[in-house]
Amino acid sequence: MDKKIRVGIVGYGNLGKGVELALRENKDFVLKGIFTRRDPSLIDTDSKVIPLSKVLDYKDEIDVMFLCGGSANDLPQQCPILAACFNTIDAYDNHSKIPDYFNMVDDIAKDSNKVSLISIGWDPGLFSLNRLLNQAIFPNRQSYTFWGEGVSQGHSEAVRKIKGVKYAVQYTIPLEEAMEKVRSGNNPQLTSREKHKRVCYVVPLDFNDTNRIEEEIKTMPDYFAEYDTTVHFITEEEFLKNHSKMPHGGFVISTDINKNNHKQRIEFNLSLENNPEFTAAVLVAFARGVYRMSLEGKKGAFSIFDIPLSYISPKSNEELRKELL
Amino acid sequence: MDKKIRVGIVGYGNLGKGVELALRENKDFVLKGIFTRRDPSLIDTDSKVIPLSKVLDYKDEIDVMFLCGGSANDLPQQCPILAACFNTIDAYDNHSKIPDYFNMVDDIAKDSNKVSLISIGWDPGLFSLNRLLNQAIFPNRQSYTFWGEGVSQGHSEAVRKIKGVKYAVQYTIPLEEAMEKVRSGNNPQLTSREKHKRVCYVVPLDFNDTNRIEEEIKTMPDYFAEYDTTVHFITEEEFLKNHSKMPHGGFVISTDINKNNHKQRIEFNLSLENNPEFTAAVLVAFARGVYRMSLEGKKGAFSIFDIPLSYISPKSNEELRKELL
Repeated sequence: MDKKIRVGIVGYGNLGKGVELALRENKDFVLKGIFTRRDPSLIDTDSKVIPLSKVLDYKDEIDVMFLCGGSANDLPQQCPILAACFNTIDAYDNHSKIPDYFNMVDDIAKDSNKVSLISIGWDPGLFSLNRLLNQAIFPNRQSYTFWGEGVSQGHSEAVRKIKGVKYAVQYTIPLEEAMEKVRSGNNPQLTSREKHKRVCYVVPLDFNDTNRIEEEIKTMPDYFAEYDTTVHFITEEEFLKNHSKMPHGGFVISTDINKNNHKQRIEFNLSLENNPEFTAAVLVAFARGVYRMSLEGKKGAFSIFDIPLSYISPKSNEELRKELL
Repeated sequence: MDKKIRVGIVGYGNLGKGVELALRENKDFVLKGIFTRRDPSLIDTDSKVIPLSKVLDYKDEIDVMFLCGGSANDLPQQCPILAACFNTIDAYDNHSKIPDYFNMVDDIAKDSNKVSLISIGWDPGLFSLNRLLNQAIFPNRQSYTFWGEGVSQGHSEAVRKIKGVKYAVQYTIPLEEAMEKVRSGNNPQLTSREKHKRVCYVVPLDFNDTNRIEEEIKTMPDYFAEYDTTVHFITEEEFLKNHSKMPHGGFVISTDINKNNHKQRIEFNLSLENNPEFTAAVLVAFARGVYRMSLEGKKGAFSIFDIPLSYISPKSNEELRKELL
């Protein structure tokens, strides 16, 4: 495509910074501005920073808007407003609320004749695509998702909310034994405890408090009670040195044993030193798809299941068939 | 979808048998017939077998035709004739000729208002999709494909054509050292010899002839000369016992090291005890997409890059978003 795709970023946290970074690797985009609720003069970047309150002034200058706010509070508020004026892409990841979020955005984007691609990234996102492939190819087998080894922001946050915790991080670790069962084609029924374990590194305000904190973590329903959890108490110095990165990854696996007794395995895995930067790289690729769908006159909300993958490549269909098929 | 998808199979070799097997696992299809150039009475199956010469009589009874002939001779002859009357899907895998094949089929299917989905399977197919994803997400990194451990039909055939060879099989084996270099993010330049080795098991007509046969194999240009090749001479008994299966698989890997020095790896891999049966399972899933595109009034040739993956699932978009996103 000759014309560059003009984009904006709403929200300049880890994900927004990741999108800014990824855009530098993709020459077919031009970043028109970063929109923030904060004072723009406090944002440390070479990109143009604009108060979010002015965003509607840019509606004719931006082809696709990256919505980089959080799924809990930001996206449900911002997406309806922005989808009324812009094509949008986001990484909405509150799995159980995706259908409601999709329907809400779909109504707005259909009215505004815009395209909103929701829940793009790796899970939801690439992992979802692989779950679909697994189920379509092996219809009578389960598709299994394992996460980690990596930092779960939700679980880390849950630990940080416990009284007496200064810093905390939680690593989700997939259990090799369970993965091997899946790879072997047993199609096993696995409990939460059998699939993953959880390891926490906690800096307490007072080291005399560790027994209570550990007990509160291990018995926390939904987050930890259903898992084998290990808690390590460490110093602030060790925490800042060894536990301030955001690695993640995981596996999507399905194994069939067909009626001829042949075992066939499909596996997709990611190993990421920085989770939000990878999500951002996926968002940038799929933003091409948003732009292309909008040029075709499509409107409404879409998910990763709805978009031909040729749309996310800067190459022409002829080049793709010649070079990659 | 309430109505079953009515399908036919053209060609009853390994791939056609695999499609018949996979259809039994997918309740939304009904197999109307297997079309063969052979005498139908000689085909051992419970399905209806019909002479290929009668295929055009079935043009109103079949929604999608699986073309299961070989890429070298069958498909270039059959697809033009069949795409003039049927929606088709095939596993055309002659990589260098795909663009010409696509264009030829595209002209015919556009004239006949039919959909022809070409080159579906795992390579070309799922591996192609992953190469596209890798390049779109990591635009300045290479995507690497490794094949094996598995049987290459082309290389086995090349050995079988050597004078004095009774039976032969060739295993392609990816080299772990090269895969580790790719996973480490070095973005290495790898020669053919560094990526794969080749191992042949050969039953000679005369064991006095092994030196000549081994020399002919190892010096064969394109097929073996560029690789480290090992040749084992074995008895017919051992060959039939241990080397008559068709395993295959491989890896598509891309590793980025971004400007923040974070290493991020995407990997897709397959481990298949029976290569044609897996290709067939992929064909059956994507035949849903052919049917759905045809209902939408699409026409012409398409590749795996052109089809939203929701189209290959029997589930509705609402179910997909709720269960898999």
